[in-house]
Amino acid sequence: MNEVKPFRDDVTDRNMSGGCGFQDGVYKPIADVSVNVLDWGFNKSDVTYDVVHVKDGAFFRLQHHLDRFWASMAGLRMSIPYSQEEVAEILTECVRRARLRDAYVAMVTTRGVPKPGMPRKPGLIENRFIGYAIPWVDVIKPDVQERGAHLIIAKTPRIPSASVDPTIKNYHWGDLIRAQFEADDAGADTAVLLDLDGYLTEGPGFNVFAVIDGTVVTPDRGALEGVTRQSVLDLCADMGIPTEIRPITADEFREADEIFTATTAGGVMPCSRVDGRIKGNDRPGPISAKLKDVYWQRHAEGWDTTPIDYGD
Amino acid sequence: MNEVKPFRDDVTDRNMSGGCGFQDGVYKPIADVSVNVLDWGFNKSDVTYDVVHVKDGAFFRLQHHLDRFWASMAGLRMSIPYSQEEVAEILTECVRRARLRDAYVAMVTTRGVPKPGMPRKPGLIENRFIGYAIPWVDVIKPDVQERGAHLIIAKTPRIPSASVDPTIKNYHWGDLIRAQFEADDAGADTAVLLDLDGYLTEGPGFNVFAVIDGTVVTPDRGALEGVTRQSVLDLCADMGIPTEIRPITADEFREADEIFTATTAGGVMPCSRVDGRIKGNDRPGPISAKLKDVYWQRHAEGWDTTPIDYGD
Repeated sequence: MNEVKPFRDDVTDRNMSGGCGFQDGVYKPIADVSVNVLDWGFNKSDVTYDVVHVKDGAFFRLQHHLDRFWASMAGLRMSIPYSQEEVAEILTECVRRARLRDAYVAMVTTRGVPKPGMPRKPGLIENRFIGYAIPWVDVIKPDVQERGAHLIIAKTPRIPSASVDPTIKNYHWGDLIRAQFEADDAGADTAVLLDLDGYLTEGPGFNVFAVIDGTVVTPDRGALEGVTRQSVLDLCADMGIPTEIRPITADEFREADEIFTATTAGGVMPCSRVDGRIKGNDRPGPISAKLKDVYWQRHAEGWDTTPIDYGD
Repeated sequence: MNEVKPFRDDVTDRNMSGGCGFQDGVYKPIADVSVNVLDWGFNKSDVTYDVVHVKDGAFFRLQHHLDRFWASMAGLRMSIPYSQEEVAEILTECVRRARLRDAYVAMVTTRGVPKPGMPRKPGLIENRFIGYAIPWVDVIKPDVQERGAHLIIAKTPRIPSASVDPTIKNYHWGDLIRAQFEADDAGADTAVLLDLDGYLTEGPGFNVFAVIDGTVVTPDRGALEGVTRQSVLDLCADMGIPTEIRPITADEFREADEIFTATTAGGVMPCSRVDGRIKGNDRPGPISAKLKDVYWQRHAEGWDTTPIDYGD
């Protein structure tokens, strides 16, 4: 377990308190890290990214995120002039300069800005890399974590994999934002989306799991191959809990014994209601709660972590 | 017809030569107009926009673009603290400061940056407006315009309307970029996409038309209701050319007598090949060429234009 020291006030760069980014060879406050309106990464969402978290001064499963980021870039025919080791060092320096013990750390590659008069061919544009670290905040509020999240199954269908590959981490959130509005209108916390064939996919920023007759199941389609999803599957294997990766219908999901979500931004999150239907006793189910506890306990034990040397 | 005066060198702000933008009450060079990486408009592509063009010192169909921009914002539950008149004045000032006689002029609203600790609800975030003007360039090179563009019908299907509404102008271009790579790999200029049912939709940034037995037809589904598309339909009505808005299959499209595209960024663009199949005599077809000529002729006559007072 990492020993966590408080930062000394006198070495904290207050400009970096909201986060630190790296762009074009320069480290700067997060407020200054931005993408030009002519970059296709903005005006065509022609961009990929990954997010790793830092907890108690250490990256969690950094190599998994770097490998996936590289695979995403290859899938979009993008490249950057840095090695994985260099990106890891850039991200580390962002965390160090923002002096964060708990953080979300992003790596982003945009298609870039075409030179004036250049033919409209994406393969000709020089890609741009951005890294940044921002303070960890609980995306799901503590009281919701306590009672279990309330989900709806959205009417908006997930963008199909044939159009935009969900395993290449992307910012195409139009369907997810519509689903989130559906959840907000229904007084729920968030939503999960079905594909056009009616099978469960994922929600805005998270993978989804059901516990059915003691087996932990998660969709085989339409979803990001999440690192936290993989961590859950790894933990289940260690704990002797059977798992299945397979199609899940909306009815199966609504009738499941337990429901939980998994995301880098929050870890394992038990849910207590789906479409107003109460799971168990309207609290996190026992397997979900256990997985959540073990997930954070393993962090504390240093599972697949990369400690950061803050130099203090 | 507008008389076009050259700019005097001594009043040209060279910093603005690449374009001028407006953001947070300030006019600035386009290189400084950018979106923070934490703005959902970037990191969730939760954004809408519109582009109007300026030709010979006058906006073309400005009110159409403003109306559509306002409808797009309403569709995404976004709002900005400016009236249509104020946005028109901001855009005019961008063109004026960049001293452009021919320009693309964009209006963009992003969801914005959530305040730290705010619940993850899009309805709570303050939306952000950006306007900018950049010099007109021919997106399709003159030699391609001359010979007619070569299209392919992409294997990548268009994102379905049920997931992301194509009539709300958006930056979800993942499918369009994949289609453009397909075209580049095939040695074609660009691509058109089918929906999941096999019907024609649109291409990367343009609407598409076919001429079949003397009738100009364009898809009724999966496509932006383009202002230039509407201009083509208006011109056909004036010229006594019959039109139909209806489903079009890939086979019908490949067998059509003529093919052309329509976009604000370039106007009417005749095509001479689809999937390697040669149309007519491998040159722009007669109706397509005529529509292209009349489209620009009407511009010169001041059709639905809003002249800009450059004060010089």
